[in-house]
Amino acid sequence: MIPRYRKSEIEEIFDDPNKLEEWQATELAGLKAQADLGKIPVQDYTEIWDVLKAAKITPEVIARWLALEHELNHDLNAFVHERREHLRAALRRLFHAIFTSYDTEEPAFARMLRAASLLLLHTVLPPLEEQLVRLARLYRYTPMNGRSHGQEAEMQSFGKRCLTWFVAIQLGVERLREAHDGLRFSKLSGAIGNYTEIDPEIERLALAELGLEPFYGATQIMPREVYLPMAEAVSQLVGTCEKIAHDLRLMARSGLPLVQEPFKKKQTGSSAMPHKKNTIATEKIGGMDRLAIGYGLSIRLNLHTWEERAIEQSSTERVAWPDLFHVAAHALDTLTKVLKGLNVYPDNMLREIINSRGCYASGSAKVFLAEHGQAVGIDEDAAYRIVQLAAFNAFAPSEEDLAMREQPALTLEEADDALAGMVGALEEEEELSPDSIEHVICDARLKISSQLAATPQDVGRWNGQLHLLFAGDDVLVKWREIFQPSYLLRNEPILYKKILGV
Amino acid sequence: MIPRYRKSEIEEIFDDPNKLEEWQATELAGLKAQADLGKIPVQDYTEIWDVLKAAKITPEVIARWLALEHELNHDLNAFVHERREHLRAALRRLFHAIFTSYDTEEPAFARMLRAASLLLLHTVLPPLEEQLVRLARLYRYTPMNGRSHGQEAEMQSFGKRCLTWFVAIQLGVERLREAHDGLRFSKLSGAIGNYTEIDPEIERLALAELGLEPFYGATQIMPREVYLPMAEAVSQLVGTCEKIAHDLRLMARSGLPLVQEPFKKKQTGSSAMPHKKNTIATEKIGGMDRLAIGYGLSIRLNLHTWEERAIEQSSTERVAWPDLFHVAAHALDTLTKVLKGLNVYPDNMLREIINSRGCYASGSAKVFLAEHGQAVGIDEDAAYRIVQLAAFNAFAPSEEDLAMREQPALTLEEADDALAGMVGALEEEEELSPDSIEHVICDARLKISSQLAATPQDVGRWNGQLHLLFAGDDVLVKWREIFQPSYLLRNEPILYKKILGV
Amino acid sequence: MIPRYRKSEIEEIFDDPNKLEEWQATELAGLKAQADLGKIPVQDYTEIWDVLKAAKITPEVIARWLALEHELNHDLNAFVHERREHLRAALRRLFHAIFTSYDTEEPAFARMLRAASLLLLHTVLPPLEEQLVRLARLYRYTPMNGRSHGQEAEMQSFGKRCLTWFVAIQLGVERLREAHDGLRFSKLSGAIGNYTEIDPEIERLALAELGLEPFYGATQIMPREVYLPMAEAVSQLVGTCEKIAHDLRLMARSGLPLVQEPFKKKQTGSSAMPHKKNTIATEKIGGMDRLAIGYGLSIRLNLHTWEERAIEQSSTERVAWPDLFHVAAHALDTLTKVLKGLNVYPDNMLREIINSRGCYASGSAKVFLAEHGQAVGIDEDAAYRIVQLAAFNAFAPSEEDLAMREQPALTLEEADDALAGMVGALEEEEELSPDSIEHVICDARLKISSQLAATPQDVGRWNGQLHLLFAGDDVLVKWREIFQPSYLLRNEPILYKKILGV
Amino acid sequence: MIPRYRKSEIEEIFDDPNKLEEWQATELAGLKAQADLGKIPVQDYTEIWDVLKAAKITPEVIARWLALEHELNHDLNAFVHERREHLRAALRRLFHAIFTSYDTEEPAFARMLRAASLLLLHTVLPPLEEQLVRLARLYRYTPMNGRSHGQEAEMQSFGKRCLTWFVAIQLGVERLREAHDGLRFSKLSGAIGNYTEIDPEIERLALAELGLEPFYGATQIMPREVYLPMAEAVSQLVGTCEKIAHDLRLMARSGLPLVQEPFKKKQTGSSAMPHKKNTIATEKIGGMDRLAIGYGLSIRLNLHTWEERAIEQSSTERVAWPDLFHVAAHALDTLTKVLKGLNVYPDNMLREIINSRGCYASGSAKVFLAEHGQAVGIDEDAAYRIVQLAAFNAFAPSEEDLAMREQPALTLEEADDALAGMVGALEEEEELSPDSIEHVICDARLKISSQLAATPQDVGRWNGQLHLLFAGDDVLVKWREIFQPSYLLRNEPILYKKILGV
Repeated sequence: MIPRYRKSEIEEIFDDPNKLEEWQATELAGLKAQADLGKIPVQDYTEIWDVLKAAKITPEVIARWLALEHELNHDLNAFVHERREHLRAALRRLFHAIFTSYDTEEPAFARMLRAASLLLLHTVLPPLEEQLVRLARLYRYTPMNGRSHGQEAEMQSFGKRCLTWFVAIQLGVERLREAHDGLRFSKLSGAIGNYTEIDPEIERLALAELGLEPFYGATQIMPREVYLPMAEAVSQLVGTCEKIAHDLRLMARSGLPLVQEPFKKKQTGSSAMPHKKNTIATEKIGGMDRLAIGYGLSIRLNLHTWEERAIEQSSTERVAWPDLFHVAAHALDTLTKVLKGLNVYPDNMLREIINSRGCYASGSAKVFLAEHGQAVGIDEDAAYRIVQLAAFNAFAPSEEDLAMREQPALTLEEADDALAGMVGALEEEEELSPDSIEHVICDARLKISSQLAATPQDVGRWNGQLHLLFAGDDVLVKWREIFQPSYLLRNEPILYKKILGV
Repeated sequence: MIPRYRKSEIEEIFDDPNKLEEWQATELAGLKAQADLGKIPVQDYTEIWDVLKAAKITPEVIARWLALEHELNHDLNAFVHERREHLRAALRRLFHAIFTSYDTEEPAFARMLRAASLLLLHTVLPPLEEQLVRLARLYRYTPMNGRSHGQEAEMQSFGKRCLTWFVAIQLGVERLREAHDGLRFSKLSGAIGNYTEIDPEIERLALAELGLEPFYGATQIMPREVYLPMAEAVSQLVGTCEKIAHDLRLMARSGLPLVQEPFKKKQTGSSAMPHKKNTIATEKIGGMDRLAIGYGLSIRLNLHTWEERAIEQSSTERVAWPDLFHVAAHALDTLTKVLKGLNVYPDNMLREIINSRGCYASGSAKVFLAEHGQAVGIDEDAAYRIVQLAAFNAFAPSEEDLAMREQPALTLEEADDALAGMVGALEEEEELSPDSIEHVICDARLKISSQLAATPQDVGRWNGQLHLLFAGDDVLVKWREIFQPSYLLRNEPILYKKILGV
Repeated sequence: MIPRYRKSEIEEIFDDPNKLEEWQATELAGLKAQADLGKIPVQDYTEIWDVLKAAKITPEVIARWLALEHELNHDLNAFVHERREHLRAALRRLFHAIFTSYDTEEPAFARMLRAASLLLLHTVLPPLEEQLVRLARLYRYTPMNGRSHGQEAEMQSFGKRCLTWFVAIQLGVERLREAHDGLRFSKLSGAIGNYTEIDPEIERLALAELGLEPFYGATQIMPREVYLPMAEAVSQLVGTCEKIAHDLRLMARSGLPLVQEPFKKKQTGSSAMPHKKNTIATEKIGGMDRLAIGYGLSIRLNLHTWEERAIEQSSTERVAWPDLFHVAAHALDTLTKVLKGLNVYPDNMLREIINSRGCYASGSAKVFLAEHGQAVGIDEDAAYRIVQLAAFNAFAPSEEDLAMREQPALTLEEADDALAGMVGALEEEEELSPDSIEHVICDARLKISSQLAATPQDVGRWNGQLHLLFAGDDVLVKWREIFQPSYLLRNEPILYKKILGV
Repeated sequence: MIPRYRKSEIEEIFDDPNKLEEWQATELAGLKAQADLGKIPVQDYTEIWDVLKAAKITPEVIARWLALEHELNHDLNAFVHERREHLRAALRRLFHAIFTSYDTEEPAFARMLRAASLLLLHTVLPPLEEQLVRLARLYRYTPMNGRSHGQEAEMQSFGKRCLTWFVAIQLGVERLREAHDGLRFSKLSGAIGNYTEIDPEIERLALAELGLEPFYGATQIMPREVYLPMAEAVSQLVGTCEKIAHDLRLMARSGLPLVQEPFKKKQTGSSAMPHKKNTIATEKIGGMDRLAIGYGLSIRLNLHTWEERAIEQSSTERVAWPDLFHVAAHALDTLTKVLKGLNVYPDNMLREIINSRGCYASGSAKVFLAEHGQAVGIDEDAAYRIVQLAAFNAFAPSEEDLAMREQPALTLEEADDALAGMVGALEEEEELSPDSIEHVICDARLKISSQLAATPQDVGRWNGQLHLLFAGDDVLVKWREIFQPSYLLRNEPILYKKILGV
C-alpha cells in the first residue's frame, strides 16, 4: 500500500521480518512437539531454539534470505536454507525435515491474519464505536429530518441516526470476531495433507503451541474457504464506513449544512475557489471502499485452486490481504477522526425541519386523521389524500416561480435580471416562516393541485370535514402535539435502552 | 430477466426462436457457400433452403428441439437433428456436415449481440441524447451553482451541466459503436479452427452472406476477447446513466429541490408518509448499474477457457449477456423518461445561488483581487486568504446558533422549545437576503474567524487595502460585474459551439 | 433465471404469489399483535383474517395487483389497495394503518431468504454430502497420485481427496447455517425506524408470530449488512462446487482419465467429433460460479444506501437474490448428479502412479535417506539432491526424444514420418514398465543431469554412499516399504476418524 | 505494489518525483500559452521556466512538499506553494493563477497513463509477441492433439496453438493502442469546466504543448469514462496472459508433459518433495489476473462521481492504476520469460496423439464415411455412430480393469497387491501400441458397447458395410491418409499466411 493509506501496525504484521519470525515460530513449535513426543532429543530442540533465537531476523538476514530466494526460486526453501546456516551439521537435518512449505506458511499466515483482525478489533474499532456512541448520546434530543429517497421523512433525533450507524458497525464487528474465531484452525499435515511423514499428534501439539487447532481435511494447503469469511467481514466494515461517510457527505452539502467535517485552520479547500470546505475525508472513505471491493473480489477468486494445491492464490494473497487491511484501517481511522472533530449544527437541523413545512409529521398526521376523522367521514384513503394534498399545497410555487419554470431565461442578460429580481423578491418577502401542513389542514385550507387527481368536489368535501373536525379545541391541541419533537421522538428511548442500555 | 426490467425487443433477439433462426441462417449460409464453390449441387442447397424455410420455427419445433436436447444433452446437435427430420435422406448428410457446433453458434451469437447493440444505438440511445440536448439548449441561460464535493462551486448554467452529461453518454455511444464494429468477425473453421474439413473459402463466403468477416486464429470457438469490449461498453453506458441519475437525485433532495422526477397524478410516494415524492426512477437506475457491474464481471471472467475450448463460458453467456442488455435498456429508457418529464426549478436554482452568499464567484473574486489588488499590496496569497475569510464571515453563525451548537437540547422538552424558538426567530429575522462575500469584501468588513489562522493584524491590513482598492468607482463596477451570470457564464458558448455546433 | 438453470422450488419461494402471501402474513401478524395488545378489537382482526385468507392470491388477484401498481407506481401500496378491496369500509382503515412499506417487506424478505437457504440446507446439500461421503468411503483404499501444481505429488487415496472436498463443502454449510441464523432479525418500526406510530411491543409480538426477532437500530429498512453474509455464504458454496468440479475436469482429461462424468447412452459429445465425452456438466458448474460471483458483487454493492433509505437496493435484490439461489442450487444439484454417476477408474490411477516413476514417494524417500543415510555421510541437503537427481534420471528422455526436441519437423512430410517412427518405436520398446527412483536409488544408478547443478564428483560420491547404504538387506526391505500404499496411506485413517467418525 | 511484482519503469512513471514533474509541465505549458496569447509578459514566463527548471524536483523538494501538504491537507496546493517559494513575489501571482487543481492534475495524469501504456506497447509487449511468433513458426509442423473440454480433439500443430495465443494478445494490443489514442484528450477549463477565468484558447495551446487536445464537456474533472477503456484494455491483456499460462499449465501436467516451464539448475520445486518441477511462473500469472480483475473493478466503480466532482476516485486511482500496470507488466514479462525458456516436447505430443487411438481424426473419419459410405448404405447418422462406437471400442477397458472399477480395494494390503499386479501386467502386456479407430473401422471390428445405444443388429450391419467399403484398395489408401498430419494440418498454412504473412 502506498504510504498515504498505509498503517504502520498493519505493515509490521505483514512485512518480511515478521513473516520470517512467524515461519520460525512454526518450525520451532514443530520441533518442540517432536521433542515432547520423543521423536527427537529434547536437547537438540533447545539448542536449535537457542541458536535461532540468537540469530535474529536482522536486515542482513533478510538480505541473505532474498539472495537465496533468487537462487532457489522458492521463498520458504530459502528461509530454511538461511536458518540452517546457523545450525551445526547434525541439527540441520531436523529443521523443516518433515514439513512441506505450507506446513510452515499456513499457521504463520493464519496468525498474521488473526493479528491484523485483532488490531482492528482491539485498537481501530473501539475509538470509532466510542465516537458513534458519544454522538448518539450527545444528540439524543436533537431533532432532525429523517430522510428516505433524499426526501424529508419523519422527524428523528440526530442521535438516533448515529445509533443506526453504530449498530451497522456492530454487525461488522461481530462478523469480524467470528471470522477471527474461525481462523483458529490450521494444518501441519505434510505434503498433501495425509500425514505421510508427520504424526497427527505432532500437528496437534505444535498448533496448540501457536494458539491454533488442527484442521482435518486440508490438502497441501488449507482450503481457501477458511480465509474468505475474514476478507468479507473486513470488506463489509469498509462498506459500512462508506455508508456512514456518504450520509455525512449528504448532510454536509452546502446550502444548509447539518454537519461539516473538521477543517484545519490552514487547510485550503480548493486551489481555485478559496471558500471551499470540501468533504475530502468522507469522500476518501468512498475511495477506500472501491479498493476494498476489488481486494475482496480477488480473494474470492482464490477459492479456485487445482487439486491438492496450485500457487495462483499466493501472489494474490501477498498483495490483496495486506492492502485490504490497510484500506480498512485507513477508512476506519479516517471515519473516527471525522466523527471526533465533526461540526454538528442543530440550528440548521431545525431550519430544515421548519422548511419541510410540517411534512416531518405527515405519517402521524395521516394516522391522526384516519383515527379522529372517522367521526366526520374521513376514511383511511381520504386521510392519506388530504395529507398529500396539504403537502402539495404547502409547497405550491408562487406565480413568479411558475413563470420562471415555464419560461427559463433566453439570454445572459435575462439571467442577470432574474437573479437581481430574486434578490429583490427575497428582501420583500412577507411571510417569513414557511407554511405548514399543520396549518393547512387544521385551518381547512386545502386547494386543488394540478399535480394530484383530487377534484374540486373532493377538496370541498374535505375542507368541510376538516372544519368540523377541528372545531373542538381538544382535537386541535392533540393535533398540535403530533408536530412536536416530544411526540415524534417519544419512542426512541427504547432504542437507546436496547442498544446502549441507557 | 424478470418482467419488470425486461425489454421485449431485447427478449426477441435472445429468445429460443430467434436463436434457432440464427443458427439456421448460419447453416444455410454455409451450404450456399459450398454450392457457390461447387462443393455441393446448387439444387441440393436450394431444396434445403426451401424445405427449412417452410418448416418455420414454431412452438412445436421448439418443443421437438427441447425433447431432442433432453435426449442428446447437446442443444446444437438437437437442432441439427430436428432440422434434418424435415429433409429427405440424401440431403440430411449435407446439413451441418462439415461444421462443428460453434461454427454454427459463433456467427449466430455475434449477430445477436450486434442486433442488441444496434437496438441500443438506433432505438434506445437517440431519445436519451435528444432529451439531454433539449435540456442543454432550454436551460442554456439558467444559472445554477456548480458543485464540487457537494459544495457550492462556481456558477454555471443548468444547460451546461446537461451538456456534460451528454458528452459522457457520447463517450459510451462511441465505445458501443466501436464494439459493434469489432464484432464483425466470426469463424467457420471447424472443430479446432484449423479447417480440417472446411475450406477457408467456404468460411469467407458464408460469413459474408451473414454480414461478417473471418477471424483468423480462432480455436474451436472465438477468443472471448472479441466479445468483452461490447460488454464493457454496455456496462459503461449504464454507469454513465447512474452518474446522471445520481446527480438528479442530489438535485432533487428536498429542502430546495432544483429538479424533481415526473410524478403521476395518482402515484403514491410512501405507504406511511403521504407527502413523499420519491426519486424512485433515478434510484432504480442505480440498481441497474449494480446489476450491470455484476454481469460485466461474469463476462470478464469468461476470458478464462481451456485450450481449444471448454464450456464454462456458455452458461454464463446465456444468462449474463441478455440480462446485461435488459438492464442497460431499462436504465437508458428510464433515464430518458425521467428527463422527458423532468420538473426543473430555475427559481430554486437562483435561491440556492443567493444562499451561497457570493461564493459562486469566489474564484473570480480571488483572480480579481490578485490582479487589481497588486496596486494596494494584495498579493496572490493574500487574495486567496481574503476571499476565504470573507466567505467564512458571510457564513458566520449567529450567537443563538452558536449556543445551540455548543449545547444541544438535553430533554425532549428542550427540543420542543428549541423548535418553537427557531420558528419565532425566523419570523422576526430582519435581514431578509443573506450577506455575500461581494459586500463583505467591497465594504471592507472582514472579521477574524475562529476557524482560520488569520490574525487581527492580517484582517486590519486587509480591510485597509480593500478600503483603498474599492475607493475608485470603476473598480467597484468591475467587481460587481464578476458576480453576474453574464460574466460568469460568458465562455460557455464555446462549449455549445464545440459540442452541439450551436 | 432462464428455465435451463431454474429450480422450481426456488422459483416458488421468490415468485409473486408467494411474495404476496408473505406480505399478507406480515400484515396479519401485525394486526394480531395489535389485537393481543388491545389496540384493535380482536373480532376485527379475526374478521380481516377470515376475509383475506378466503381471498386467495389467485392469478386474478395478481392481475389486479399489477394493474394497481401500474397506476400507483408502488408495488406494496398496490398490494395494500388490493387487499383492502376485500374488506368492508370499517376494517380497511386497520390494514397496513401503522406500517410503512418496508415494515411489510422486510420480514417477508427475510423469511423468503430463510426459506431458500433452508431449501439448500435441507434438500439440496444433503445428497451432495452423501455422495461425497459415499465416494470417500468407497475409495478409501484406492491409491492415486496427489497432485500439487499439476505435478504428481505424494500418493494418497482417492477417498481422501473426496474427504477434502467434503470438508470444504462442510465449511460452506456451516456458513450458510450461520447466515440463516443471522437472518432471524427483522423490523416493524415504522417510517424511519423510530416507532413514531408503532409500539415496539407490536413489533416484538408480530415478528415472533413470524418466527423472527426485532432488530433494534434499523432505519426505514434493515441495514443491508444483515443480508450480505447469506449471499456470501451461498456464493462460497458455488465456489467450492467449482473447485471440486474443476478437479474432476482435471482428472477426466483424456490420455489417462481417472474419472469420467456420467454419459447417457444416446448423448453426443460434439457435432463434429463423434468420439468426444466432454466434461460439460462440470464445466457448467464453472459457469455457475462466474454468475454467482457477479450476483455476489451486486449484493455487496447494496451496502451503499442513502440515509434512512433509498431504493437502489430493491431492483438489485429482486434479480440478484433469486438468481443467486438458482445458480447455487443448479451448481449443487449438477455436482451431486455428476458424483452420483461418476465413473471412477482405479486402474488408471495405478497406471498414473507407476508412470510417476516412484516420485509419489519422493518425500518419504528424502526423509528415509536423511535418516538412514547419516551413517554413510548423507546429510539432509544431500538426501534432497539425491532424490531430485534420481527423479530427473528416471525421467531422462531417450536420444531419439532429445533429437526431436532439438529439431522439430520442418515439413508436413517430416511430421508424417515422425508419427510413423514413434508408432514403430512404441511397438519395439523393450522396457515395458518405466524406471523408478526406487530402483535408481537403491541400485546406486545416479547419473549427472544437464538440468541440475550436481557435479560428476557429487554423483560419484552419492552412488558410493547409496551402494554402502543399501548393502544391508533390512535397509532395502524398509526402503521398498515406503513405496507401498500401506506405508504411504497409513495415517489417513485419522482423517476418516476425525471427519467421518469411521 | 510490493517489490516482488513491481516494475521499476512503471514505478518511475507513477512515483512522486515524476508526478511533480508532470504537474510542473502542465503549469509551464499553461504559462507559455498565456505568454503566446499576450496575457502575460513573455519574459515573465521565461523567467519562471528558468527558475523552476533550475529548482529540480529533488528529495528535499519532495520533503518540503510533503510538509506543506500536511499543513494544507491538499497535495496540489502544497505543490503550488512549494514552487512559488522559488519565485520572486511578482511572479508568484502568475503560477497556477487561473487553474483549478484538476486543470493541473488531469493532463499530468493522462500523460502518465499514456506513458505507462506506451511502455507496455513499446517495451513489454513486443518481446512477448516475438516469442509467440517464434514458437508458432518453429512448431509449425509439430503435430499435437487439439483439446476441447480437456478431451483429445482433432490434430493440430503446436505452432497453430501458439498462433491462436498470438492473435488473442493482438486483440489486447489493438485495444490498448486505441485506449492510448482515446486518452489524448484532457482539460484546462477551470473550476467547473466552463472557462470562467480561463480562455479556451489557453487550454488549446497549453494542451498542444503537452501533446494533448481539449476535451469539451468536462466538469471540474474529466469524466472517468475517458480513462476506463484503458483499464479494461490492460486488464484484458492480463486475462489473455492467464489463458495462455493456464494452457501451458495444462500441457505441463506430469504424466506426459508436452511442455515445461524453464527450471533453474539450483531451483527447488518443493521443500518436501525433491522431484517437483512446479509450474510456479504460469500459476503466478493466474494470481496477477485475479489482482487485475480487482483493480479493474475498482476503476469501473469510479464512474460514479457527484456533480461537477467529488474525490472518491482520487484515492482509488492513486492505488489501483499503478498496481494494475505493475501486475500487467509482471504478468506479461513473466509469460515472455516462460515462453523464451519453454521446454517443448514434440515426442510426448506424438505419444499423446498415438494414445488417443485415432480419435484425433474422428471428425475427418466421420466425413469420410458419410461421403464414401453412401454407396454401401452408410448415411450421415450412421457415420457418426460408427465412429463413436469405434472410439468406445478402442478405449474399452480390459477385464482386469473392469474388475478393479467394480470392486475397489477394501484394505491397504489389497491396494499394495493391486499396485504390484498392475506393474506386473504392464511388464507382460503384449499389445505395445494401442489400438485405433483407424483400424477398428477399416478392419470392420466394431463391437457393441455397454455405454452406447447401438444394438447388435446395428453393429452387424455396420461391420458388413465397412467390410464392403474397405474392400477396395484405393478407399483404404485414402482412409489411411486422413490419419496423417499432412492431411489434417493441410489447411493451417492459410492461418500462417493471414496472421503472419508467411
